[in-house]
Amino acid sequence: MEPRLTAAEITEFLDQVFPQLRGQMVIEEVGPMRARMRMPIDASHLRPGGTVSGPAMFTLADCTFYVATLAMIGREALAVTTSLSINFLRKPARRDLIGEARILKLGQRLSVGDVTLTSEGDDRPVAHATMTYAIPPRDLARKLG
Amino acid sequence: MEPRLTAAEITEFLDQVFPQLRGQMVIEEVGPMRARMRMPIDASHLRPGGTVSGPAMFTLADCTFYVATLAMIGREALAVTTSLSINFLRKPARRDLIGEARILKLGQRLSVGDVTLTSEGDDRPVAHATMTYAIPPRDLARKLG
Amino acid sequence: MEPRLTAAEITEFLDQVFPQLRGQMVIEEVGPMRARMRMPIDASHLRPGGTVSGPAMFTLADCTFYVATLAMIGREALAVTTSLSINFLRKPARRDLIGEARILKLGQRLSVGDVTLTSEGDDRPVAHATMTYAIPPRDLARKLG
Amino acid sequence: MEPRLTAAEITEFLDQVFPQLRGQMVIEEVGPMRARMRMPIDASHLRPGGTVSGPAMFTLADCTFYVATLAMIGREALAVTTSLSINFLRKPARRDLIGEARILKLGQRLSVGDVTLTSEGDDRPVAHATMTYAIPPRDLARKLG
Repeated sequence: MEPRLTAAEITEFLDQVFPQLRGQMVIEEVGPMRARMRMPIDASHLRPGGTVSGPAMFTLADCTFYVATLAMIGREALAVTTSLSINFLRKPARRDLIGEARILKLGQRLSVGDVTLTSEGDDRPVAHATMTYAIPPRDLARKLG
Repeated sequence: MEPRLTAAEITEFLDQVFPQLRGQMVIEEVGPMRARMRMPIDASHLRPGGTVSGPAMFTLADCTFYVATLAMIGREALAVTTSLSINFLRKPARRDLIGEARILKLGQRLSVGDVTLTSEGDDRPVAHATMTYAIPPRDLARKLG
Repeated sequence: MEPRLTAAEITEFLDQVFPQLRGQMVIEEVGPMRARMRMPIDASHLRPGGTVSGPAMFTLADCTFYVATLAMIGREALAVTTSLSINFLRKPARRDLIGEARILKLGQRLSVGDVTLTSEGDDRPVAHATMTYAIPPRDLARKLG
Repeated sequence: MEPRLTAAEITEFLDQVFPQLRGQMVIEEVGPMRARMRMPIDASHLRPGGTVSGPAMFTLADCTFYVATLAMIGREALAVTTSLSINFLRKPARRDLIGEARILKLGQRLSVGDVTLTSEGDDRPVAHATMTYAIPPRDLARKLG
């Protein structure tokens, strides 16, 4: 099953509906049931000891999976995370963070899968998250959209 | 077992080590194996449809549990989240978010527990998170602290 | 909101639809949005070192939450676990395990909550689980039930 | 990093330390940071509606990851699950269940990774679990082992 939207189309869509996230992450690639994003790391993401903050990693995992889902289902700004489970595995380097999402199940109501986070240039995962997105029924989306 | 630190002492400590979080959350109470924090909600936390963003809820859950742990173990800026699992239950109101943390196990190396998030004035949970913090050995903390 | 079923009614129902679980666990109490069950521990649940096995604790957590949900929604054998997250906190004693479930959200389609497991006579939790049950639409349940 | 133990060596070890699991699962393959196991499905694993029970899937996920970890660290019967998070994705077929484990981080104290479960002959995942195993210090293992 091929994606319905390109990386450029999703970027444009996200800039409209999530203007507060603009420029924080870059979609590098979308493919069938998967997506890859990059988060440039600066001082605002860091915690004591130089660690990238948990919320920054959460945000990248969450967004990468959202992008993978949007790519498959089309523009659905109302899709929302219903659960997310993240394991922090290694101290990330002070380099860009990369998120790789794969969808394990795409149903009419739910999208479930995982995201692996790495520091650029090092393929050992720094974090791994699993998550579920609820997809609103079409009618609701149309009415509110 | 009584807390070693008061809310005021932890606030002062957090302002020093996490200056970027200053003013985003308020510690309302710390007690034995528990803490309560408040996150004032403004437009920057919102998503389409008026929902408070997942990362904002993650941040409040993470910090409330960190505060509960700090209160019991003393100043340990290096304590880090190793895993966090969150279920988003209801659409939060556009009111302050409240986090209530309880520690279920406090060991020498780990602190494990959960946080329930509510919107002020409504006791139905909007999210529930479980999490584990790793506590660094004393020597390491002293050396780097 | 009061439970629709008593402990005795749920026990009778479970004996019919899950005969393979008969006698493995006892419902001690059901109340509004909560339930308590007991699992007598024998050698078949033990692992090396005398620890109760993870699957036995999973089973008790899963069933206790199922019972709490059934009590509120009525007989729905088709309700199924969609996710479960468990933290193992302490080595259980060689005594009966007690599960205490609370429902955090009961919707038309989902029941979400947590279960705390203790060894009888010791209130420190040995494990803590969060879980989501999907509740099938009434029509489907009637057709297949 | 190559495994220290073969599938046959691990099978022999498990038969000794977990005699109650004997014959319930078969190790099909171990490799660097991964393992594959098979669970033959019979009536005892089924729930109403023909679904394989959650605890049976938990057990397969847990064991497959344990085997992957043992293969890398050697015989450590005391390694114990500290957390496990599982999403149930599709109704499994009434065929053998296959578990594929991969270790995402293998430290001196922890092994963290995930397991994907499928029904034989169908590569769509029926469940996906992430888990953490605590590895006891060598001295403790030697003393008790």
